[in-house]
Amino acid sequence: MERITARTNDKIKYASLLASSASKRRESGEFLLEGARLCADAAACSVEIVRSFFTSDALEKYSSYISVITDACRECYEITPEVASRLSDTGSSQGVFCVCRMRECSYALKSTDRCIALENLQDPSNVGAVIRSAEAIGIDALIVSGGCDIYNPKVLRAAMGSAMRMNIIQCDSLPAFIEKSKAGGFVSFACVVSGEAEDIRNTGALAGEKGIICCIGNEGNGLTQETVNACDYRVTIPMQGKAESLNAAAAASIAAWELKR
Amino acid sequence: MERITARTNDKIKYASLLASSASKRRESGEFLLEGARLCADAAACSVEIVRSFFTSDALEKYSSYISVITDACRECYEITPEVASRLSDTGSSQGVFCVCRMRECSYALKSTDRCIALENLQDPSNVGAVIRSAEAIGIDALIVSGGCDIYNPKVLRAAMGSAMRMNIIQCDSLPAFIEKSKAGGFVSFACVVSGEAEDIRNTGALAGEKGIICCIGNEGNGLTQETVNACDYRVTIPMQGKAESLNAAAAASIAAWELKR
Repeated sequence: MERITARTNDKIKYASLLASSASKRRESGEFLLEGARLCADAAACSVEIVRSFFTSDALEKYSSYISVITDACRECYEITPEVASRLSDTGSSQGVFCVCRMRECSYALKSTDRCIALENLQDPSNVGAVIRSAEAIGIDALIVSGGCDIYNPKVLRAAMGSAMRMNIIQCDSLPAFIEKSKAGGFVSFACVVSGEAEDIRNTGALAGEKGIICCIGNEGNGLTQETVNACDYRVTIPMQGKAESLNAAAAASIAAWELKR
Repeated sequence: MERITARTNDKIKYASLLASSASKRRESGEFLLEGARLCADAAACSVEIVRSFFTSDALEKYSSYISVITDACRECYEITPEVASRLSDTGSSQGVFCVCRMRECSYALKSTDRCIALENLQDPSNVGAVIRSAEAIGIDALIVSGGCDIYNPKVLRAAMGSAMRMNIIQCDSLPAFIEKSKAGGFVSFACVVSGEAEDIRNTGALAGEKGIICCIGNEGNGLTQETVNACDYRVTIPMQGKAESLNAAAAASIAAWELKR
Protein backbone atom coordinates (compact mmCIF):
# COMPACT_ATOMS: atom_id res chain seq x y z
CA MET A 1 0.00 0.00 0.00
CA GLU A 2 1.48 3.34 -1.04
CA ARG A 3 2.07 5.76 1.83
CA ILE A 4 1.05 9.43 1.92
CA THR A 5 2.81 11.53 4.54
CA ALA A 6 2.20 15.08 3.26
CA ARG A 7 -0.93 16.97 4.23
CA THR A 8 -0.47 18.91 0.99
CA ASN A 9 -0.66 15.81 -1.23
CA ASP A 10 -3.09 16.46 -4.10
CA LYS A 11 -5.30 13.47 -3.31
CA ILE A 12 -5.56 14.59 0.31
CA LYS A 13 -6.29 18.18 -0.65
CA TYR A 14 -9.05 16.94 -2.96
CA ALA A 15 -10.56 14.61 -0.33
CA SER A 16 -10.47 17.38 2.26
CA LEU A 17 -12.24 19.73 -0.15
CA LEU A 18 -14.96 17.13 -0.73
CA ALA A 19 -15.55 17.05 3.02
CA SER A 20 -15.81 20.81 3.38
CA SER A 21 -17.39 22.04 0.16
CA ALA A 22 -20.92 21.23 -1.00
CA SER A 23 -20.27 22.86 -4.37
CA LYS A 24 -17.16 20.70 -4.90
CA ARG A 25 -19.27 17.63 -4.14
CA ARG A 26 -21.94 18.69 -6.63
CA GLU A 27 -19.40 19.58 -9.31
CA SER A 28 -17.45 16.31 -8.99
CA GLY A 29 -20.25 13.91 -8.14
CA GLU A 30 -18.03 12.55 -5.36
CA PHE A 31 -18.04 12.76 -1.58
CA LEU A 32 -15.85 11.79 1.39
CA LEU A 33 -16.98 9.14 3.83
CA GLU A 34 -15.33 8.69 7.24
CA GLY A 35 -15.36 5.79 9.68
CA ALA A 36 -14.60 2.07 9.48
CA ARG A 37 -18.18 0.87 9.77
CA LEU A 38 -19.63 3.50 7.43
CA CYS A 39 -17.03 2.86 4.72
CA ALA A 40 -17.56 -0.92 4.97
CA ASP A 41 -21.34 -0.32 4.74
CA ALA A 42 -20.75 1.69 1.56
CA ALA A 43 -18.71 -1.14 0.03
CA ALA A 44 -21.35 -3.67 1.07
CA CYS A 45 -24.10 -1.76 -0.72
CA SER A 46 -22.09 -1.31 -3.89
CA VAL A 47 -21.34 2.38 -3.56
CA GLU A 48 -18.43 3.02 -5.92
CA ILE A 49 -15.30 3.68 -3.85
CA VAL A 50 -12.80 5.71 -5.85
CA ARG A 51 -9.96 5.59 -3.34
CA SER A 52 -9.45 4.91 0.32
CA PHE A 53 -7.11 6.08 3.07
CA PHE A 54 -6.19 4.27 6.28
CA THR A 55 -3.85 5.09 9.15
CA SER A 56 -1.55 2.25 10.25
CA ASP A 57 -3.45 2.10 13.56
CA ALA A 58 -6.70 1.69 11.65
CA LEU A 59 -5.24 -1.09 9.48
CA GLU A 60 -4.64 -3.07 12.66
CA LYS A 61 -7.67 -2.10 14.67
CA TYR A 62 -10.35 -2.27 11.96
CA SER A 63 -8.86 -5.01 9.76
CA SER A 64 -12.15 -6.83 9.19
CA TYR A 65 -13.97 -3.67 8.07
CA ILE A 66 -10.98 -2.61 5.99
CA SER A 67 -10.80 -5.91 4.11
CA VAL A 68 -14.38 -5.30 2.94
CA ILE A 69 -13.30 -1.85 1.73
CA THR A 70 -10.06 -2.92 -0.01
CA ASP A 71 -11.95 -5.69 -1.82
CA ALA A 72 -14.14 -3.01 -3.37
CA CYS A 73 -11.47 -0.39 -4.08
CA ARG A 74 -8.24 -0.65 -6.06
CA GLU A 75 -6.66 2.64 -5.01
CA CYS A 76 -5.74 2.34 -1.32
CA TYR A 77 -3.29 4.48 0.64
CA GLU A 78 -1.77 4.38 4.06
CA ILE A 79 -1.74 7.81 5.69
CA THR A 80 -0.14 9.31 8.78
CA PRO A 81 -2.22 10.53 11.75
CA GLU A 82 -1.38 14.12 10.69
CA VAL A 83 -2.86 13.53 7.26
CA ALA A 84 -5.90 11.84 8.84
CA SER A 85 -6.52 14.87 11.01
CA ARG A 86 -6.77 17.02 7.86
CA LEU A 87 -9.51 14.73 6.51
CA SER A 88 -11.41 14.17 9.72
CA ASP A 89 -14.62 15.88 10.69
CA THR A 90 -14.56 14.47 14.24
CA GLY A 91 -12.46 14.94 17.33
CA SER A 92 -11.68 11.26 17.60
CA SER A 93 -11.05 9.95 14.10
CA GLN A 94 -10.84 6.21 13.41
CA GLY A 95 -8.45 6.96 10.53
CA VAL A 96 -10.58 5.35 7.80
CA PHE A 97 -11.74 7.42 4.79
CA CYS A 98 -13.18 6.72 1.34
CA VAL A 99 -13.76 8.99 -1.62
CA CYS A 100 -17.02 7.68 -3.09
CA ARG A 101 -19.14 8.42 -6.14
CA MET A 102 -22.68 9.63 -5.56
CA ARG A 103 -25.32 7.21 -6.75
CA GLU A 104 -28.02 8.17 -9.16
CA CYS A 105 -31.23 7.21 -7.41
CA SER A 106 -33.10 5.23 -10.05
CA TYR A 107 -35.97 4.36 -7.72
CA ALA A 108 -39.40 4.78 -9.30
CA LEU A 109 -42.18 5.36 -6.80
CA LYS A 110 -44.70 2.54 -6.52
CA SER A 111 -48.36 3.37 -6.21
CA THR A 112 -48.66 2.31 -2.56
CA ASP A 113 -45.38 3.81 -1.31
CA ARG A 114 -45.25 5.79 1.89
CA CYS A 115 -42.77 8.65 1.49
CA ILE A 116 -41.40 11.53 3.51
CA ALA A 117 -40.32 14.74 1.74
CA LEU A 118 -37.93 17.21 3.37
CA GLU A 119 -38.03 20.80 2.18
CA ASN A 120 -34.91 22.91 2.77
CA LEU A 121 -33.88 21.12 5.97
CA GLN A 122 -30.65 22.78 7.07
CA ASP A 123 -29.26 21.09 10.15
CA PRO A 124 -27.10 18.13 9.05
CA SER A 125 -27.83 16.25 12.29
CA ASN A 126 -31.55 16.57 11.58
CA VAL A 127 -31.23 15.43 7.98
CA GLY A 128 -29.10 12.45 9.04
CA ALA A 129 -31.47 11.49 11.86
CA VAL A 130 -34.45 11.58 9.48
CA ILE A 131 -32.68 9.33 6.96
CA ARG A 132 -31.87 6.89 9.77
CA SER A 133 -35.44 6.97 11.15
CA ALA A 134 -36.95 6.59 7.67
CA GLU A 135 -34.97 3.43 6.98
CA ALA A 136 -35.58 1.95 10.42
CA ILE A 137 -39.32 2.60 10.26
CA GLY A 138 -39.61 1.27 6.72
CA ILE A 139 -40.42 4.41 4.71
CA ASP A 140 -40.20 3.52 1.00
CA ALA A 141 -38.49 6.67 -0.23
CA LEU A 142 -37.26 10.03 0.98
CA ILE A 143 -37.61 13.08 -1.23
CA VAL A 144 -35.25 15.97 -0.47
CA SER A 145 -35.38 19.40 -2.01
CA GLY A 146 -33.52 22.66 -1.81
CA GLY A 147 -30.21 23.04 -0.04
CA CYS A 148 -30.63 19.78 1.83
CA ASP A 149 -27.22 18.15 1.22
CA ILE A 150 -27.24 14.43 1.96
CA TYR A 151 -23.49 14.04 1.31
CA ASN A 152 -22.40 16.46 4.05
CA PRO A 153 -20.06 14.52 6.42
CA LYS A 154 -22.28 15.30 9.42
CA VAL A 155 -25.36 13.99 7.58
CA LEU A 156 -23.55 10.80 6.61
CA ARG A 157 -22.40 10.24 10.19
CA ALA A 158 -25.82 10.92 11.75
CA ALA A 159 -27.51 8.66 9.18
CA MET A 160 -25.30 5.73 10.29
CA GLY A 161 -25.16 4.05 6.87
CA SER A 162 -28.83 4.59 6.02
CA ALA A 163 -27.87 7.32 3.52
CA MET A 164 -26.25 4.61 1.39
CA ARG A 165 -29.24 2.28 1.54
CA MET A 166 -32.38 4.44 1.51
CA ASN A 167 -34.09 5.44 -1.71
CA ILE A 168 -33.41 9.18 -1.66
CA ILE A 169 -34.84 11.21 -4.51
CA GLN A 170 -33.41 14.71 -4.89
CA CYS A 171 -35.56 17.33 -6.59
CA ASP A 172 -35.24 21.03 -7.32
CA SER A 173 -38.82 22.00 -6.64
CA LEU A 174 -40.97 20.13 -4.13
CA PRO A 175 -44.25 21.72 -5.34
CA ALA A 176 -43.50 20.50 -8.89
CA PHE A 177 -42.65 17.03 -7.57
CA ILE A 178 -45.93 16.92 -5.64
CA GLU A 179 -47.99 17.97 -8.66
CA LYS A 180 -46.38 15.17 -10.67
CA SER A 181 -46.95 12.62 -7.91
CA LYS A 182 -50.61 13.65 -7.66
CA ALA A 183 -51.01 12.85 -11.35
CA GLY A 184 -49.54 9.45 -10.47
CA GLY A 185 -52.27 8.86 -7.86
CA PHE A 186 -50.42 9.91 -4.70
CA VAL A 187 -52.04 11.75 -1.81
CA SER A 188 -49.88 14.54 -0.41
CA PHE A 189 -49.78 15.97 3.10
CA ALA A 190 -48.17 19.19 4.33
CA CYS A 191 -47.08 18.88 7.95
CA VAL A 192 -47.81 22.21 9.64
CA VAL A 193 -48.26 23.62 13.14
CA SER A 194 -51.96 24.44 13.24
CA GLY A 195 -54.93 23.51 15.34
CA GLU A 196 -57.09 23.51 12.22
CA ALA A 197 -55.17 20.95 10.16
CA GLU A 198 -56.06 17.27 10.06
CA ASP A 199 -54.64 15.10 12.85
CA ILE A 200 -51.53 13.22 11.65
CA ARG A 201 -53.18 10.01 12.93
CA ASN A 202 -55.76 10.31 10.14
CA THR A 203 -53.30 10.24 7.22
CA GLY A 204 -53.86 6.53 6.61
CA ALA A 205 -57.65 6.90 6.57
CA LEU A 206 -57.45 9.96 4.31
CA ALA A 207 -55.12 8.25 1.82
CA GLY A 208 -56.91 4.90 1.72
CA GLU A 209 -55.01 2.49 -0.50
CA LYS A 210 -53.11 5.25 -2.25
CA GLY A 211 -49.46 6.16 -1.91
CA ILE A 212 -48.55 8.99 0.47
CA ILE A 213 -46.07 11.85 0.38
CA CYS A 214 -45.80 13.67 3.72
CA CYS A 215 -43.82 16.93 3.62
CA ILE A 216 -41.73 18.31 6.50
CA GLY A 217 -40.38 21.87 6.35
CA ASN A 218 -37.31 23.83 7.30
CA GLU A 219 -36.31 24.14 10.99
CA GLY A 220 -37.04 27.85 11.29
CA ASN A 221 -39.64 28.56 8.65
CA GLY A 222 -41.54 25.32 8.09
CA LEU A 223 -42.81 24.49 4.61
CA THR A 224 -42.99 27.09 1.86
CA GLN A 225 -46.47 28.36 1.06
CA GLU A 226 -46.10 26.89 -2.46
CA THR A 227 -45.62 23.41 -1.02
CA VAL A 228 -48.51 23.78 1.43
CA ASN A 229 -50.72 24.91 -1.46
CA ALA A 230 -49.61 22.04 -3.68
CA CYS A 231 -50.55 19.40 -1.07
CA ASP A 232 -53.97 17.72 -0.81
CA TYR A 233 -54.15 18.06 2.98
CA ARG A 234 -52.57 19.97 5.82
CA VAL A 235 -51.78 17.68 8.75
CA THR A 236 -50.47 18.41 12.21
CA ILE A 237 -48.97 16.58 15.16
CA PRO A 238 -51.24 17.70 18.01
CA MET A 239 -49.31 19.64 20.68
CA GLN A 240 -49.80 20.25 24.34
CA GLY A 241 -47.86 22.47 26.70
CA LYS A 242 -46.22 25.71 25.63
CA ALA A 243 -43.78 24.21 23.15
CA GLU A 244 -44.81 25.63 19.80
CA SER A 245 -43.34 22.95 17.63
CA LEU A 246 -41.24 19.84 17.50
CA ASN A 247 -37.66 19.63 16.29
CA ALA A 248 -37.81 18.87 12.54
CA ALA A 249 -36.21 15.42 12.96
CA ALA A 250 -38.64 14.51 15.76
CA ALA A 251 -41.60 15.67 13.66
CA ALA A 252 -40.38 13.69 10.64
CA SER A 253 -39.80 10.58 12.78
CA ILE A 254 -43.29 10.74 14.26
CA ALA A 255 -44.81 11.40 10.82
CA ALA A 256 -42.89 8.44 9.36
CA TRP A 257 -44.04 6.28 12.26
CA GLU A 258 -47.69 7.23 11.66
CA LEU A 259 -47.41 6.58 7.90
CA LYS A 260 -46.29 3.01 8.61
CA ARG A 261 -48.27 2.36 11.79
CA MET B 1 -27.10 50.32 33.00
CA GLU B 2 -23.50 49.70 34.07
CA ARG B 3 -21.18 48.84 31.19
CA ILE B 4 -18.64 45.99 31.09
CA THR B 5 -15.92 46.30 28.45
CA ALA B 6 -13.28 43.88 29.73
CA ARG B 7 -13.42 40.21 28.79
CA THR B 8 -11.52 39.57 32.02
CA ASN B 9 -14.20 41.12 34.26
CA ASP B 10 -14.97 38.73 37.14
CA LYS B 11 -18.69 38.52 36.37
CA ILE B 12 -17.92 37.67 32.75
CA LYS B 13 -15.31 35.08 33.73
CA TYR B 14 -17.84 33.47 36.06
CA ALA B 15 -20.63 33.46 33.45
CA SER B 16 -18.28 32.00 30.86
CA LEU B 17 -17.27 29.26 33.28
CA LEU B 18 -20.93 28.41 33.88
CA ALA B 19 -21.33 27.91 30.14
CA SER B 20 -18.33 25.65 29.77
CA SER B 21 -18.15 23.68 33.01
CA ALA B 22 -20.74 21.19 34.20
CA SER B 23 -19.00 20.86 37.56
CA LYS B 24 -19.11 24.65 38.07
CA ARG B 25 -22.85 24.54 37.34
CA ARG B 26 -23.39 21.74 39.85
CA GLU B 27 -21.25 23.40 42.51
CA SER B 28 -22.91 26.83 42.18
CA GLY B 29 -26.46 25.77 41.34
CA GLU B 30 -26.40 28.36 38.56
CA PHE B 31 -26.26 28.22 34.76
CA LEU B 32 -25.89 30.56 31.80
CA LEU B 33 -28.74 31.04 29.36
CA GLU B 34 -28.24 32.66 25.93
CA GLY B 35 -30.70 34.18 23.50
CA ALA B 36 -33.41 36.86 23.70
CA ARG B 37 -36.37 34.53 23.46
CA LEU B 38 -34.93 31.89 25.79
CA CYS B 39 -34.04 34.43 28.47
CA ALA B 40 -37.50 36.04 28.24
CA ASP B 41 -39.05 32.55 28.50
CA ALA B 42 -37.02 31.97 31.67
CA ALA B 43 -38.27 35.23 33.19
CA ALA B 44 -41.83 34.40 32.17
CA CYS B 45 -41.75 31.06 33.98
CA SER B 46 -40.23 32.53 37.13
CA VAL B 47 -36.74 31.13 36.80
CA GLU B 48 -34.61 33.22 39.15
CA ILE B 49 -32.37 35.48 37.03
CA VAL B 50 -29.29 36.48 39.03
CA ARG B 51 -27.85 38.90 36.48
CA SER B 52 -28.16 39.68 32.80
CA PHE B 53 -25.91 40.98 30.03
CA PHE B 54 -26.93 42.72 26.80
CA THR B 55 -25.00 44.22 23.92
CA SER B 56 -26.12 47.69 22.79
CA ASP B 57 -27.31 46.14 19.52
CA ALA B 58 -29.43 43.66 21.45
CA LEU B 59 -30.93 46.44 23.61
CA GLU B 60 -32.29 47.99 20.42
CA LYS B 61 -33.15 44.90 18.44
CA TYR B 62 -34.75 42.76 21.19
CA SER B 63 -36.20 45.53 23.38
CA SER B 64 -39.53 43.77 23.98
CA TYR B 65 -37.86 40.53 25.10
CA ILE B 66 -35.33 42.47 27.16
CA SER B 67 -37.98 44.43 29.04
CA VAL B 68 -39.42 41.11 30.25
CA ILE B 69 -35.93 40.14 31.44
CA THR B 70 -35.05 43.43 33.13
CA ASP B 71 -38.39 43.40 34.97
CA ALA B 72 -37.33 40.10 36.54
CA CYS B 73 -33.67 40.93 37.23
CA ARG B 74 -32.13 43.77 39.17
CA GLU B 75 -28.51 43.29 38.12
CA CYS B 76 -28.27 44.20 34.42
CA TYR B 77 -25.15 45.08 32.43
CA GLU B 78 -24.43 46.37 28.99
CA ILE B 79 -21.55 44.52 27.35
CA THR B 80 -19.44 45.01 24.23
CA PRO B 81 -19.56 42.58 21.30
CA GLU B 82 -16.10 41.32 22.32
CA VAL B 83 -17.36 40.44 25.78
CA ALA B 84 -20.47 38.81 24.24
CA SER B 85 -18.27 36.61 22.06
CA ARG B 86 -16.61 35.25 25.21
CA LEU B 87 -19.99 34.22 26.60
CA SER B 88 -21.54 32.91 23.41
CA ASP B 89 -21.86 29.29 22.46
CA THR B 90 -23.01 30.09 18.91
CA GLY B 91 -21.47 31.58 15.79
CA SER B 92 -24.16 34.24 15.52
CA SER B 93 -24.89 35.49 19.03
CA GLN B 94 -27.89 37.72 19.73
CA GLY B 95 -25.96 39.33 22.58
CA VAL B 96 -28.44 38.44 25.35
CA PHE B 97 -27.32 36.38 28.35
CA CYS B 98 -28.68 35.56 31.81
CA VAL B 99 -27.07 33.87 34.77
CA CYS B 100 -29.94 31.85 36.27
CA ARG B 101 -30.48 29.70 39.35
CA MET B 102 -31.39 26.06 38.80
CA ARG B 103 -34.86 25.18 40.00
CA GLU B 104 -35.54 22.41 42.45
CA CYS B 105 -38.09 20.21 40.72
CA SER B 106 -40.75 19.74 43.38
CA TYR B 107 -43.06 17.81 41.07
CA ALA B 108 -44.57 14.71 42.68
CA LEU B 109 -45.62 12.04 40.20
CA LYS B 110 -49.36 11.48 39.94
CA SER B 111 -50.67 7.95 39.65
CA THR B 112 -51.73 8.27 36.00
CA ASP B 113 -48.69 10.19 34.73
CA ARG B 114 -46.97 9.20 31.52
CA CYS B 115 -43.24 9.72 31.90
CA ILE B 116 -40.08 9.27 29.86
CA ALA B 117 -36.79 8.44 31.61
CA LEU B 118 -33.43 9.09 29.96
CA GLU B 119 -30.48 7.03 31.14
CA ASN B 120 -27.01 8.48 30.53
CA LEU B 121 -27.94 10.32 27.32
CA GLN B 122 -24.78 12.11 26.20
CA ASP B 123 -25.47 14.20 23.11
CA PRO B 124 -26.78 17.63 24.21
CA SER B 125 -28.77 18.03 20.98
CA ASN B 126 -30.53 14.75 21.71
CA VAL B 127 -31.28 15.66 25.31
CA GLY B 128 -32.61 19.07 24.23
CA ALA B 129 -34.74 17.58 21.45
CA VAL B 130 -36.28 15.05 23.84
CA ILE B 131 -37.18 17.78 26.36
CA ARG B 132 -38.79 19.78 23.56
CA SER B 133 -40.68 16.74 22.20
CA ALA B 134 -41.79 15.69 25.67
CA GLU B 135 -43.36 19.08 26.38
CA ALA B 136 -44.96 19.37 22.93
CA ILE B 137 -46.46 15.88 23.12
CA GLY B 138 -47.71 16.38 26.67
CA ILE B 139 -45.51 14.00 28.66
CA ASP B 140 -46.11 14.69 32.37
CA ALA B 141 -42.53 14.39 33.59
CA LEU B 142 -39.06 13.57 32.37
CA ILE B 143 -36.68 11.63 34.57
CA VAL B 144 -32.99 12.02 33.79
CA SER B 145 -30.17 10.04 35.32
CA GLY B 146 -26.43 9.80 35.08
CA GLY B 147 -24.30 12.36 33.31
CA CYS B 148 -27.27 13.80 31.46
CA ASP B 149 -26.76 17.56 32.03
CA ILE B 150 -29.89 19.56 31.30
CA TYR B 151 -28.16 22.92 31.93
CA ASN B 152 -25.57 22.51 29.18
CA PRO B 153 -25.93 25.51 26.79
CA LYS B 154 -26.51 23.20 23.81
CA VAL B 155 -29.26 21.35 25.67
CA LEU B 156 -30.94 24.62 26.64
CA ARG B 157 -30.82 25.88 23.05
CA ALA B 158 -32.12 22.63 21.51
CA ALA B 159 -34.92 22.46 24.10
CA MET B 160 -36.18 25.91 22.98
CA GLY B 161 -37.46 26.96 26.41
CA SER B 162 -39.02 23.60 27.28
CA ALA B 163 -36.20 22.93 29.77
CA MET B 164 -37.58 25.77 31.87
CA ARG B 165 -41.17 24.54 31.77
CA MET B 166 -41.05 20.73 31.82
CA ASN B 167 -41.13 18.77 35.05
CA ILE B 168 -37.64 17.29 34.98
CA ILE B 169 -36.70 14.99 37.84
CA GLN B 170 -33.00 14.27 38.21
CA CYS B 171 -31.98 11.03 39.90
CA ASP B 172 -28.71 9.29 40.63
CA SER B 173 -29.87 5.76 39.95
CA LEU B 174 -32.62 4.97 37.47
CA PRO B 175 -33.07 1.37 38.70
CA ALA B 176 -33.65 2.65 42.24
CA PHE B 177 -36.10 5.26 40.93
CA ILE B 178 -38.00 2.57 39.02
CA GLU B 179 -38.23 0.29 42.05
CA LYS B 180 -39.68 3.17 44.06
CA SER B 181 -42.15 4.07 41.32
CA LYS B 182 -43.30 0.44 41.11
CA ALA B 183 -44.16 0.58 44.79
CA GLY B 184 -46.22 3.66 43.88
CA GLY B 185 -48.21 1.70 41.29
CA PHE B 186 -46.33 2.66 38.14
CA VAL B 187 -45.69 0.26 35.26
CA SER B 188 -42.17 0.55 33.83
CA PHE B 189 -40.96 -0.17 30.31
CA ALA B 190 -37.37 -0.60 29.08
CA CYS B 191 -37.08 0.49 25.44
CA VAL B 192 -34.68 -1.94 23.74
CA VAL B 193 -33.77 -3.11 20.25
CA SER B 194 -35.12 -6.65 20.17
CA GLY B 195 -37.52 -8.65 18.08
CA GLU B 196 -38.71 -10.44 21.22
CA ALA B 197 -39.76 -7.42 23.26
CA GLU B 198 -43.34 -6.14 23.39
CA ASP B 199 -44.39 -3.79 20.60
CA ILE B 200 -44.27 -0.16 21.79
CA ARG B 201 -47.86 0.21 20.53
CA ASN B 202 -49.00 -2.09 23.34
CA THR B 203 -47.70 0.02 26.23
CA GLY B 204 -51.12 1.58 26.84
CA ALA B 205 -52.87 -1.81 26.92
CA LEU B 206 -50.19 -3.30 29.17
CA ALA B 207 -50.34 -0.42 31.64
CA GLY B 208 -54.11 -0.07 31.77
CA GLU B 209 -55.07 2.83 34.00
CA LYS B 210 -51.72 2.94 35.73
CA GLY B 211 -48.96 5.50 35.36
CA ILE B 212 -46.10 4.69 32.96
CA ILE B 213 -42.35 5.22 33.02
CA CYS B 214 -40.71 4.42 29.68
CA CYS B 215 -36.89 4.30 29.74
CA ILE B 216 -34.60 5.28 26.85
CA GLY B 217 -30.90 4.45 26.97
CA ASN B 218 -27.57 5.95 26.01
CA GLU B 219 -26.79 6.61 22.31
CA GLY B 220 -24.10 3.98 21.99
CA ASN B 221 -24.91 1.42 24.66
CA GLY B 222 -28.64 1.62 25.24
CA LEU B 223 -30.02 1.02 28.73
CA THR B 224 -27.93 -0.55 31.47
CA GLN B 225 -28.78 -4.15 32.30
CA GLU B 226 -29.77 -3.03 35.80
CA THR B 227 -32.44 -0.73 34.38
CA VAL B 228 -33.72 -3.36 31.95
CA ASN B 229 -33.95 -5.81 34.84
CA ALA B 230 -35.75 -3.30 37.06
CA CYS B 231 -38.48 -2.66 34.49
CA ASP B 232 -41.75 -4.62 34.25
CA TYR B 233 -41.59 -4.97 30.46
CA ARG B 234 -39.15 -4.70 27.61
CA VAL B 235 -40.66 -2.79 24.67
CA THR B 236 -39.34 -2.11 21.20
CA ILE B 237 -40.07 0.13 18.25
CA PRO B 238 -40.38 -2.41 15.40
CA MET B 239 -37.72 -1.84 12.72
CA GLN B 240 -37.51 -2.60 9.06
CA GLY B 241 -34.60 -2.18 6.67
CA LYS B 242 -30.99 -2.59 7.71
CA ALA B 243 -30.90 0.27 10.18
CA GLU B 244 -30.23 -1.33 13.54
CA SER B 245 -31.68 1.35 15.71
CA LEU B 246 -33.12 4.83 15.84
CA ASN B 247 -31.34 7.93 17.03
CA ALA B 248 -32.03 8.24 20.79
CA ALA B 249 -34.05 11.46 20.36
CA ALA B 250 -36.15 9.91 17.56
CA ALA B 251 -36.78 6.80 19.69
CA ALA B 252 -37.75 8.93 22.70
CA SER B 253 -40.05 11.11 20.58
CA ILE B 254 -41.85 8.08 19.11
CA ALA B 255 -42.10 6.46 22.56
CA ALA B 256 -43.51 9.71 24.01
CA TRP B 257 -45.97 9.90 21.13
CA GLU B 258 -47.17 6.34 21.77
CA LEU B 259 -47.54 6.95 25.52
CA LYS B 260 -49.92 9.83 24.82
CA ARG B 261 -51.56 8.52 21.63
